[in-house]
Amino acid sequence: MTLAEQIHDFGRRARAAARIMRQLSAEQKNAGLLAMADEIIAAEPEILAANARDVEKARANGLSAAMIDRLLLNPKRLAAMADGVRQVAGLPDPVGEIIRDWTRPNGLHIQKKRVPIGVIGIIYESRPNVTADAAVLCAKTGNATILRGGSESIESNVAIAAALSRGGAKAGLPADAILLIPVTDREAVRVMCEMDQFLDCIVPRGGKGLIETVVRHARMPVIKHYDGICITYVSASADLAMARDILINAKCQRPSACNAVETVLIHAAIAEKFATTVLPALLEKGVQLRCDERAFSQASSLNSQLVVHANADDFRTEFLDYVLAMKIVDSLGEAIEHTETHGSHHSDCIITEDASEAERYLAEVDSATVYWNASSRLTHGGEICLGAEIGISTDKLHARGPMGLEELTTYKYVLRGTGQVRG
Amino acid sequence: MTLAEQIHDFGRRARAAARIMRQLSAEQKNAGLLAMADEIIAAEPEILAANARDVEKARANGLSAAMIDRLLLNPKRLAAMADGVRQVAGLPDPVGEIIRDWTRPNGLHIQKKRVPIGVIGIIYESRPNVTADAAVLCAKTGNATILRGGSESIESNVAIAAALSRGGAKAGLPADAILLIPVTDREAVRVMCEMDQFLDCIVPRGGKGLIETVVRHARMPVIKHYDGICITYVSASADLAMARDILINAKCQRPSACNAVETVLIHAAIAEKFATTVLPALLEKGVQLRCDERAFSQASSLNSQLVVHANADDFRTEFLDYVLAMKIVDSLGEAIEHTETHGSHHSDCIITEDASEAERYLAEVDSATVYWNASSRLTHGGEICLGAEIGISTDKLHARGPMGLEELTTYKYVLRGTGQVRG
Repeated sequence: MTLAEQIHDFGRRARAAARIMRQLSAEQKNAGLLAMADEIIAAEPEILAANARDVEKARANGLSAAMIDRLLLNPKRLAAMADGVRQVAGLPDPVGEIIRDWTRPNGLHIQKKRVPIGVIGIIYESRPNVTADAAVLCAKTGNATILRGGSESIESNVAIAAALSRGGAKAGLPADAILLIPVTDREAVRVMCEMDQFLDCIVPRGGKGLIETVVRHARMPVIKHYDGICITYVSASADLAMARDILINAKCQRPSACNAVETVLIHAAIAEKFATTVLPALLEKGVQLRCDERAFSQASSLNSQLVVHANADDFRTEFLDYVLAMKIVDSLGEAIEHTETHGSHHSDCIITEDASEAERYLAEVDSATVYWNASSRLTHGGEICLGAEIGISTDKLHARGPMGLEELTTYKYVLRGTGQVRG
Repeated sequence: MTLAEQIHDFGRRARAAARIMRQLSAEQKNAGLLAMADEIIAAEPEILAANARDVEKARANGLSAAMIDRLLLNPKRLAAMADGVRQVAGLPDPVGEIIRDWTRPNGLHIQKKRVPIGVIGIIYESRPNVTADAAVLCAKTGNATILRGGSESIESNVAIAAALSRGGAKAGLPADAILLIPVTDREAVRVMCEMDQFLDCIVPRGGKGLIETVVRHARMPVIKHYDGICITYVSASADLAMARDILINAKCQRPSACNAVETVLIHAAIAEKFATTVLPALLEKGVQLRCDERAFSQASSLNSQLVVHANADDFRTEFLDYVLAMKIVDSLGEAIEHTETHGSHHSDCIITEDASEAERYLAEVDSATVYWNASSRLTHGGEICLGAEIGISTDKLHARGPMGLEELTTYKYVLRGTGQVRG
């Protein structure tokens, strides 16, 4: 078989598995998930052996210590993986919900019913955890998955996917509900992107290069995450102690996250006070401040090497680091305008004690999540209470913002009649 | 300006208009729609003059009478177009709905709120009515639209779009909320498909060639309609008088529609009775029956030239004509299997008096709309009570089946806090 034939064969098998998966009850699926968790633990020796081979190859290829740490599995991390699977089993199942129910004047009874999507393709890089995280969320919602992970973690991925599939099968789930493509040719991505007869949607998880490739080739809907250029506006009416705490959290709690703040806008009326009360805390954390002219004139008084001049690109950049672009604005309108034109519509925030100002901001800023007096780091399925997330979408269709279990479903219309026809 | 620059300029203007549109109240948008309807009537002389030029060109190019009829506008059709716009003004506005509202243990208050999508691209062919239909549904839901119609109706489209834009502006809507690309170069489609910075989604309405082009090039989400291979299964427990009425309606009421039935499956136990009680009515309407071997042996007794042998392709074909593929099956399971593998998951139906059989069918057939004892022609926004539809989606993400006003919206999360941060 050629690679394409092999992947198409996966497609056919996944499609058949999806037909079985969508008929299963929540109890059957949850039993399958618990069996998967058990099998991850039972397969510890082979998963860790496979992972050791990946790590060895990574060392030989000179990958950084941080990259190797992301790759590394050990008994504790495997136990956490299994626990994560068990937690998903405990979440409510959205499938089968009657979203709406009504009867037409002609007696036709209509239900809009939540059902699984079908077969979901997941294309991801490096971390082997994604294999379990993504496959299990799809199985929970009655979908089949075709996974294609990165070459660094291929041996680990194969071992984890095999354990999940075997565990599910022990509890009566179709073994083909979780399939991992065991080769890492780039060609595999292109083949997956083109087989819209087998994949109902595709979720790329990784860097911009990967997402760009998928967007260019995919014939089926793609749910993706581009930039997280998150902007926080500190109004003239802000509580500056709160502003400090929120900005420290939004910038420093995990700078590499997509929902970390990248630009702070400060109203001119409080710029001086902001410089003396908030900026020292950021500098103390090692945050470099890239300032526009007016912000620089305030911040330079702090005499820190971390205070530098911004260039125009800095206000359109996702730093993912201890770097914050800083700009003084003269009005709420200017802050909104900047956010709409420079941000990525991901997670934006206003800090103010003025409710009418806040409501205008919340209404006019068109982002997936808009905050009043809270850290943009809260954009996460667990924090917003969707229970779990397979990613955060920067698209507007189907899933916007954190993508939880509900976003792994679609709906169908079920119509019960007594001979109704079109007039 | 090059064509690409010109279309990008449209993109920028539409984006700015969308920012205004999404802040308007339902009353403001409805006033805009009513003013658009008035302006269509006021602009009757120039719209009809433009249309006459399109018709003249169509005649010179030798278009068929049916095509010319689709193109033709007259005072009565324009009045109907204006009435259609007024009806949309009367529908409830889905924008602003609070889909969900909850408070987290940490006091963070979260709302999932329905908002407009933004800028929607509509690429369509021939009929000038689509210009008004599509633009008005988008405006109703607070979106801006960039329209790109077919070359046959370009003069009519330009005149109609200008009237809509002018009418809306008279009532305070931004003039750029409805923009029509006044050139018909194929290149325009490609430019639109690539400008994901300006278009949040694209809806192609037309033949397979157009849809294929858009799917191949689009970087933004596409909501599309491929095949309508709709299948009706007549069970052994069917009321055959009802089966006859439903099939006559589903096949003959408008054979060119995507929701017309293309294949009928008949349980073997009633095949003979079906042949004598239902088939004569279909033959009388001039429906050609393309029969598998067993169906042929039943239907051939009717001695009609319209009874012919089917080939395998007939069971995968959207005839859009007075043609029906016919096959005998031995079980409900076989009917479901055939429907799942040969149909297009659009609008499928079981006719039976046996409720348990019906419920199994409704659960196992994974189509946008599944019917028990009703005509698949009912798959339409107006009939299902979505009020209006911009099309019928054969995708599973965002919109599935009839795409109404709600499907022209997305949502955002609005989070109100008191200093909450991520732990």
